Amino acid sequence: MKKTLADRVGQIEPFRVMAMLTEAKRLEAMGRNIVHMEVGEPDFVTPEPIIEAGKQALTQGLTHYTPATGIPQLKQRIADYYADCFQLDIAAERIVITPGASGALLLVAACLVQPGRSVIMSDPGYPCNRHFVSAMGGEALTLPVAASSGYQLNGSQLADHWREDTVAAMVATPSNPTGTLLTSEQLVALFEVTESRGGYLIVDEIYQGLVYQKESITALTLSDELFVINSFSKFFGMTGWRLGWLVAPEAFIEPLERLAQNLFIAPPTVAQHAALAAFEPSTQNELERRRKLFQQRRDYLLPELRALGFDIAIKPEGAFYLYANVSGLTDNSEQFALDLLEHAGVAVTPGSDFGTLDAHKYLRFSYTTSMEQLKEGVRRIRQFLNS
Amino acid sequence: MKKTLADRVGQIEPFRVMAMLTEAKRLEAMGRNIVHMEVGEPDFVTPEPIIEAGKQALTQGLTHYTPATGIPQLKQRIADYYADCFQLDIAAERIVITPGASGALLLVAACLVQPGRSVIMSDPGYPCNRHFVSAMGGEALTLPVAASSGYQLNGSQLADHWREDTVAAMVATPSNPTGTLLTSEQLVALFEVTESRGGYLIVDEIYQGLVYQKESITALTLSDELFVINSFSKFFGMTGWRLGWLVAPEAFIEPLERLAQNLFIAPPTVAQHAALAAFEPSTQNELERRRKLFQQRRDYLLPELRALGFDIAIKPEGAFYLYANVSGLTDNSEQFALDLLEHAGVAVTPGSDFGTLDAHKYLRFSYTTSMEQLKEGVRRIRQFLNS
Repeated sequence: MKKTLADRVGQIEPFRVMAMLTEAKRLEAMGRNIVHMEVGEPDFVTPEPIIEAGKQALTQGLTHYTPATGIPQLKQRIADYYADCFQLDIAAERIVITPGASGALLLVAACLVQPGRSVIMSDPGYPCNRHFVSAMGGEALTLPVAASSGYQLNGSQLADHWREDTVAAMVATPSNPTGTLLTSEQLVALFEVTESRGGYLIVDEIYQGLVYQKESITALTLSDELFVINSFSKFFGMTGWRLGWLVAPEAFIEPLERLAQNLFIAPPTVAQHAALAAFEPSTQNELERRRKLFQQRRDYLLPELRALGFDIAIKPEGAFYLYANVSGLTDNSEQFALDLLEHAGVAVTPGSDFGTLDAHKYLRFSYTTSMEQLKEGVRRIRQFLNS
Repeated sequence: MKKTLADRVGQIEPFRVMAMLTEAKRLEAMGRNIVHMEVGEPDFVTPEPIIEAGKQALTQGLTHYTPATGIPQLKQRIADYYADCFQLDIAAERIVITPGASGALLLVAACLVQPGRSVIMSDPGYPCNRHFVSAMGGEALTLPVAASSGYQLNGSQLADHWREDTVAAMVATPSNPTGTLLTSEQLVALFEVTESRGGYLIVDEIYQGLVYQKESITALTLSDELFVINSFSKFFGMTGWRLGWLVAPEAFIEPLERLAQNLFIAPPTVAQHAALAAFEPSTQNELERRRKLFQQRRDYLLPELRALGFDIAIKPEGAFYLYANVSGLTDNSEQFALDLLEHAGVAVTPGSDFGTLDAHKYLRFSYTTSMEQLKEGVRRIRQFLNS
């Protein structure tokens, strides 16, 4: 190449899960059967009422641009959702509809981050978070979190590591890759630190609806002065539609709109009209049915994996992930994952996709496949470990 | 606010066209009829075969993520399109499907731009271009272009202003806001400068299919070592679907894929499957019919506006814009545009959306409305000027 690539490109590692997927597909093309526990995407197709609403929008010819921050009707539906589920009065104007949660992360990073600024986040965590920060020229300060702290940042850790140049802290509840939650008390403690230091708390709630045996919470109950990111992808089963949203402090709405106009013009139109059906009772019933299925899968997979020697210290209470310490089985989880795929036909994601610190000790299992497949996966892993 | 916004936010001005739209909607809500010549979006709904293919994809439950750079079938269709229309052999792997041309601009900027680097582009030009560069910490070097040079950069101008820190030059053919084309000879001259200086040429071809009385060209005939951005929005009438593509030098494909994985995960799935129908003969027939309608509109509007005193120095040969010097009518085109809306009920876009240099002397007319509406608009403008 002539001019070198921008430095940020060298800092972005490829997702190992994609290499796993490619290898899995290669094996499948050779006739091998693979149990997929690597993908961070529900196995279910989008609920029928949403699909029908999408078709309806197409029949009506709703194919033009929408406003940059989304159609008012969808903002209002989301505001109603916060009112119904959390008794919160969120002004619809504070809701920015985005092309996936990715679009929301891009906007928040563009708003807050520049060279000479840092953002604190956990290791392990959602890998793209650091790259949104580095794309905008900032530094991602990753702090190690362990099973002992529920794999979540806590207030005193945040206070200890907050720097003069830090502008925000990012957390996720439920979290990817660990499936663990933050309590309201933990959120309050984190928020108090960001407030006292003059920065912002950014809370990723994209797995909000996928919580088991506990009530879902939202950081919006704490304050209007924080950023909450959500998505139609995971709970609502709309991954491929690329639709998410952001709730921001009021003073940020105008700059966020300007950024949205310039960075992506508008979110996909048909997806927005389809998503209006996401809050209908028939959809919600189906989503609740699916949530229970996810819970059943977790309740099956967790003890089975533990019995096989996978150290899952905490019972994850949300999302659809189990984050297992495999240091009792291997000293290289990435090689172990490849062996598991090659020899047992089970695809999982190595910890190295989610951080650096103890990543080589961990694997992420996604229970985004049927109970039958999970059972087959467990049978194969058992056989592999005994061979 | 606590921490200040990132500096880039202050550099991004709101689109005046949005303020015009808002005002137009306010007037319409009061019962006024408005002729819309401000919007850079075809008035036509997406062609029926594409809509049908979208519905089909939904019926088939194609609602999951696709690969980050798009489905292989669509890449192949686009490669076939280059083969059919330009006798070019573009490897499908060099085509990156993106969420709109916006996604392509984001990826190219993320690949090439960082603090301490500059990108050359024209003033006037597509306003978002400079913001993609500034988002990535680089400097947009805007060079004035006038009617005398067809509102396009030329090779010697590029050579004169190329700096040590310049990594790329961006051009568009046909161009927004001027509708002017680059010839193959002009493209060669520009490419030779970028080559000799060790940088890259980035060519925006999103209005490629909308060329009148000339043959469409593509910069890909010059070399594989440049970036070409295209879109399903304008010619194909798919604005709201948010789908575009990028053809990149082979060495960039792997980094672009990593960036795409991190910055937007994948382009919208249904849009990709729908776009497979964009190259079908029935769609192409409809698109050709629409192209001819655009040409008829241009051929009507251009002489009418000239007769009214709007100085349109060059006959635009593409896109759906007329860029008019109005300095014979006003010394403030932004105020003139507001007056035109308020008093004549005709919405146009002030030049200030597209640059700074002579922006106050210009208005952009979009012929993205019916012939009847254009005629009514001309009648109203005539009356306004005579009153």
